Amino acid sequence: MRAIQITEFGGPEVLTLTDVPEPVLKDGELLVNVSRAGINYADTHQAENSYLSATTLPIVPGGEVVGTTTDGRRVVSLIASGGYAERAAANPFTSYDVPPSIDDVTALAMIVQGTTAWLLLRRSTHMAAGESVVVHAGAGGVGTIAIQLAKAWGAGRVIATASSPEKRALTLELGADVAIDSRAEDMTAAIIEANNGKRVDVILDMTGGRVTDESVAALAPFGRLGFFGQASREAPKPIAPTNLLVHSTTIAGMWLPHAFRLPGNVVGQAMSELFDLVIGGQVRVIAGGEYGLADARQAHEDIRSRGTTGKLVLNPNV
Amino acid sequence: MRAIQITEFGGPEVLTLTDVPEPVLKDGELLVNVSRAGINYADTHQAENSYLSATTLPIVPGGEVVGTTTDGRRVVSLIASGGYAERAAANPFTSYDVPPSIDDVTALAMIVQGTTAWLLLRRSTHMAAGESVVVHAGAGGVGTIAIQLAKAWGAGRVIATASSPEKRALTLELGADVAIDSRAEDMTAAIIEANNGKRVDVILDMTGGRVTDESVAALAPFGRLGFFGQASREAPKPIAPTNLLVHSTTIAGMWLPHAFRLPGNVVGQAMSELFDLVIGGQVRVIAGGEYGLADARQAHEDIRSRGTTGKLVLNPNV
Repeated sequence: MRAIQITEFGGPEVLTLTDVPEPVLKDGELLVNVSRAGINYADTHQAENSYLSATTLPIVPGGEVVGTTTDGRRVVSLIASGGYAERAAANPFTSYDVPPSIDDVTALAMIVQGTTAWLLLRRSTHMAAGESVVVHAGAGGVGTIAIQLAKAWGAGRVIATASSPEKRALTLELGADVAIDSRAEDMTAAIIEANNGKRVDVILDMTGGRVTDESVAALAPFGRLGFFGQASREAPKPIAPTNLLVHSTTIAGMWLPHAFRLPGNVVGQAMSELFDLVIGGQVRVIAGGEYGLADARQAHEDIRSRGTTGKLVLNPNV
Repeated sequence: MRAIQITEFGGPEVLTLTDVPEPVLKDGELLVNVSRAGINYADTHQAENSYLSATTLPIVPGGEVVGTTTDGRRVVSLIASGGYAERAAANPFTSYDVPPSIDDVTALAMIVQGTTAWLLLRRSTHMAAGESVVVHAGAGGVGTIAIQLAKAWGAGRVIATASSPEKRALTLELGADVAIDSRAEDMTAAIIEANNGKRVDVILDMTGGRVTDESVAALAPFGRLGFFGQASREAPKPIAPTNLLVHSTTIAGMWLPHAFRLPGNVVGQAMSELFDLVIGGQVRVIAGGEYGLADARQAHEDIRSRGTTGKLVLNPNV
């Protein structure tokens, strides 16, 4: 079958269109005829072996697919690798049935970005109605969904950050009450100003570095920061627990793969609620563009340039 | 009126029984005829001026009273100072009506220790049914109530720590499934062993120092540590947010005074739920002894020796 394969680590140039053997199914795995595969920033880490978990070569990249199983189910699946291909093997425990009215791009946007936003608001920070919420990278994959979820669940003031006027305009269209420049010189002051002079209740942050440091300082008592990435590739400063105590501050780290091992099928519940919100018109996904297999290198160049907005997908059938 | 006054900072010897003027009520304050005042470890910090907030002299110590207002309400009140006296001025926003069947000691144990345990489980860590919970200092004021609340709310395995066999026996009587020595050489290993080889979901910690460091390392993915004091007088080590991210760990600092400013009368709701649980027989308070005004020094000596168990109260009428 046709697939993108990596035989040495590196930048977009290592993505090679080739013929590879069909996936070999392990116990209970589903064979998915891939309709579309998601393209994520994490894939560029996998290609250069700089991700949280190490990668073994050769590998077909791609961690999320939507398609049809051999017994006719339409599913979206989170997989370890193998997505950039005509067919992929998927673990049934990380595969979710997709309602017919949900399109491929939307289904793909839910399994990582949607569940991440859901978990951050529901499990990491337990956002309550009426609370103020800052969504950093509000025009990003998680951010666009988090803004809409926060509003759907009754957030008070939602403050988005983004790096360009176009991205800030998008966050306002999605329901943010105010959008601020993500490169503000003093993020603490910028957040408090955007919240009419008051500290905020909830912050979702995947930036790291000084944005995290300055965000923590903008939290009200009993405020929570959901920390789920370091896109700046800089770590925040260490935090003294004593300071968390005297300010009644919560820092909640979240790495999505852990969520799939939670008891009670938490991710399945999240997917089901997210699909319902999409069908009800309360959450929509921003499509970012579709690439054929031969354009995989271009897709990685585009996503690395940070100029893209919206969910990028690969169509392995063209 | 008779009261204990401090005119210079120091140990128990600075507590002096004397006559002081009646409290002067500020706008809206209640005059409470004190039936009993709570004696807390924090009072010893206040006496030696080593508390989180600075103290101005002269002062009548004592931060919690139960008694009757001039218009006949029986209330328990959290106050800044003035409790070790026959009468005290109380802010109506931190005064709560006490059901007739609740005794003085129980009412006093609810306004600081009870609400702290409630807030830690409900707001800081959001304990869910079935989860494993570690209660450090399980025989302490907060610990004894936290064990019972966790069980009442459906916790899975509750693990208490305490420093003596007698205190550990008390935690088991109150519902803990297992009690371990709080001076374990390796607290991470001790917690995991007590949880049948698994990491735990929730830890409540007011110890600080290495107990906190080693407790964080015993948390399962999506685990939360509620951090609300440093009784060891040692700060825990700084924590890298990146480590919280890769382990999906939450650290939730909590300082009770902030809770009284939360919207929605959260503390009032907590008091009401706590009184209901007491009336329903699901929560009981361990009485630790009653002292007359003349015995206030002895009370501080006893509480500083760490040999006491249960709620200590002062009766200003004897």
